[in-house]
Amino acid sequence: MDISHIEHIGIAVNSLDEAIPYYEGVLGLKCYAIEEVADQKVKTAFFQVGGTKIELLESTDPEGPIGKFIEKKGQGIHHLAFAVGNADAALAEAAEKGVTCIDKTSRKGAEKLNIGFLHPKATLGVLTELCSK
Amino acid sequence: MDISHIEHIGIAVNSLDEAIPYYEGVLGLKCYAIEEVADQKVKTAFFQVGGTKIELLESTDPEGPIGKFIEKKGQGIHHLAFAVGNADAALAEAAEKGVTCIDKTSRKGAEKLNIGFLHPKATLGVLTELCSK
Repeated sequence: MDISHIEHIGIAVNSLDEAIPYYEGVLGLKCYAIEEVADQKVKTAFFQVGGTKIELLESTDPEGPIGKFIEKKGQGIHHLAFAVGNADAALAEAAEKGVTCIDKTSRKGAEKLNIGFLHPKATLGVLTELCSK
Repeated sequence: MDISHIEHIGIAVNSLDEAIPYYEGVLGLKCYAIEEVADQKVKTAFFQVGGTKIELLESTDPEGPIGKFIEKKGQGIHHLAFAVGNADAALAEAAEKGVTCIDKTSRKGAEKLNIGFLHPKATLGVLTELCSK
């Protein structure tokens, strides 16, 4: 798989209004975009950190994936996203190697990326996103 | 705080012997170092991914921090480490801003870095490491 870098780290938070001041005021990072992803039932906030990003995720629906995650585990790191040349090809390669994929083909995510997820049971506990432009 | 980039993402695994083949064989990353950190009761394996690293953590003692983490939560992402100019200064700045720090001053971590942790209760659920050369 042609992973070039870590595209972003997704972090589930109760509230962007509470989290952004921590990331900006304590860590000194700068939120450069806020975007709602209706499909994923989240509102996201992005911070560039060197060559990768932090994506804060606030649930817009308790029944959505982040709402359920926070209910079960509380706030914290939700997923790790790798940048690849072609998300569909990377998903197909993972499936061929026996990895259970949540997505067989990519769909549109935040920042207009093509994204797909590998199942954490198949990736040693890490919800893993593969994404490409 | 002068964060330059994400130094590494720490991931707790049951066994490096099981995890390294997944990271190499499926994700196509290359393990470049294995190091035991006796102080932390872990054996670590490092992978460079673009400008950051993945640090896999296998516990060498069920009573160590990774042993306890896995017992409670299972395998998965354990911490997020930011590179700063001076870990001691960054820890002092965080404390001054009211963030509970696990370490008041830095100690030696893997790869000879000076490291210190912020408490996840004070960082919206993310165990946060600050490290400098």
